[in-house]
Amino acid sequence: MQLIDGKLISGQVKQEIAQEVKQIVAAGGKQPHLAVIIVGHDGGSETYVANKEKACGEVGFKSTRLAFEDTITETELLAEIEKLNNNPDIDGFIVQLPLPKHIDEQKIIEAIDYRKDVDGFHPINVGRTSIGLPSFVSATPAGIMELLKRYKVETVGKHCVVIGRSNIVGKPVATLMMQKGTDATVTVCHSRTKNLGEICLQADIIIAAIGVPNFVKAEMVKEGAVVIDVGTTRVPNASTKSGFKLTGDVDFESVAPKCSLITPVPGGVGPMTICSLLKNTLLAGRKEIYG
Amino acid sequence: MQLIDGKLISGQVKQEIAQEVKQIVAAGGKQPHLAVIIVGHDGGSETYVANKEKACGEVGFKSTRLAFEDTITETELLAEIEKLNNNPDIDGFIVQLPLPKHIDEQKIIEAIDYRKDVDGFHPINVGRTSIGLPSFVSATPAGIMELLKRYKVETVGKHCVVIGRSNIVGKPVATLMMQKGTDATVTVCHSRTKNLGEICLQADIIIAAIGVPNFVKAEMVKEGAVVIDVGTTRVPNASTKSGFKLTGDVDFESVAPKCSLITPVPGGVGPMTICSLLKNTLLAGRKEIYG
Repeated sequence: MQLIDGKLISGQVKQEIAQEVKQIVAAGGKQPHLAVIIVGHDGGSETYVANKEKACGEVGFKSTRLAFEDTITETELLAEIEKLNNNPDIDGFIVQLPLPKHIDEQKIIEAIDYRKDVDGFHPINVGRTSIGLPSFVSATPAGIMELLKRYKVETVGKHCVVIGRSNIVGKPVATLMMQKGTDATVTVCHSRTKNLGEICLQADIIIAAIGVPNFVKAEMVKEGAVVIDVGTTRVPNASTKSGFKLTGDVDFESVAPKCSLITPVPGGVGPMTICSLLKNTLLAGRKEIYG
Repeated sequence: MQLIDGKLISGQVKQEIAQEVKQIVAAGGKQPHLAVIIVGHDGGSETYVANKEKACGEVGFKSTRLAFEDTITETELLAEIEKLNNNPDIDGFIVQLPLPKHIDEQKIIEAIDYRKDVDGFHPINVGRTSIGLPSFVSATPAGIMELLKRYKVETVGKHCVVIGRSNIVGKPVATLMMQKGTDATVTVCHSRTKNLGEICLQADIIIAAIGVPNFVKAEMVKEGAVVIDVGTTRVPNASTKSGFKLTGDVDFESVAPKCSLITPVPGGVGPMTICSLLKNTLLAGRKEIYG
């Protein structure tokens, strides 16, 4: 069994991006510039945004935070998005989710110019990803694909079982795995799936993104399988300083010995997510996808 | 074994649409209006377009054909699309595919205003279908879903195996089958899939859209399965007047006795395709999806 070291790979990807930024700037080009909108004071969101800003700094991007109180109206937020859409200095931007309940998240997502939608949540980017056209692929699926690539996981003709059908992980990663060139046979399971254990047992690659801590047990995993754990549930735990323990969807202790490769939680898929965002911002800055 | 009668269902759906059109017109509303662009003189395309126009007539739609020689340039075609986008009398329109090689099909598809894209091929509609938002769903997947619904096929927790990963059938129908409310467990197989027979044998529902005549054999089908055959290959056949026989992806003779329900070819999925186009045009006329 070998661990898939997301922290290590994420570091390598960041170095590569930093290198490219240096070259761009040396050639007289513009530093990529990411803007992040954050509404309210959710602790999780503030941490995520701070991490994204930190990562921007590490690779030489400019970053701008636009923070609003949770009293901001939908109309006001839409106006802020419009400003970013029209600001040529901003290459890409994201709106940190979740938003307060009085704001329609889907409306906000669709208001973002798809050419600056580095989170890849806009229907145009979702659709282009599905069709197999160049697009901003959303961060977690893109990060998973990068891990599989860097660990040289064979995907052609392999059976990949995705557990979970969310719009931001399950569905897009299923699409990417079945795409020509990747060529996996893909099964998508979810909360309504019967005989889920039996189906998982056939998998060469399991991608668990169901959000249920320790859901995948040893008896559901074939000897030699590759297991990617997307789960990050905060499970209360008195022995940690924070009072919780970040727990994946895979019962790591029992499953790991059966795997050829497995991602830990934390330190697996998590660190790759920000990398994907940085990569998309680099592409946006270079106008590589939409010109 | 019961046949799924696409011709019958298609007739019922058309009657329902005709009824709605009558009500709209009686209330002083506008007749839905579909325009079809056809380039060149491909025999298949001309037949398809004629059938679509005939169907429009049957349900009380207005239809307009814009026929161009295959010498039309991409720029000229884009200008025609722009006219249709801006013409308030046209509710929806399609560009009959394939197009001559000097025209970039994807560029043409993306030039269509997604609010008039009744073929559902624009990335926004593909993306919205995937996310589960109201959208123009492309014709064949929508037709398959309608057949399953009208024959009261149970989908929740059932294992649906889709054979084929095309952008117009395999991928979108997989998405629709796994959507909340439909809730099937979905496996997508394709030309690179190993042990395809074994996987199909697990299916409660098989959707064959691989374009290989008689590909699905009896030994790949579980007793009692529901089989949907999307294939329509013209296989040379001296005994028919046309010199060919429309042949599905399923070896009907051997497979049918094992099925609880099966679509014939022709007369199964085929007739539903035009229905879906009519339905989308009705929705477009009513501004039901995009206002």
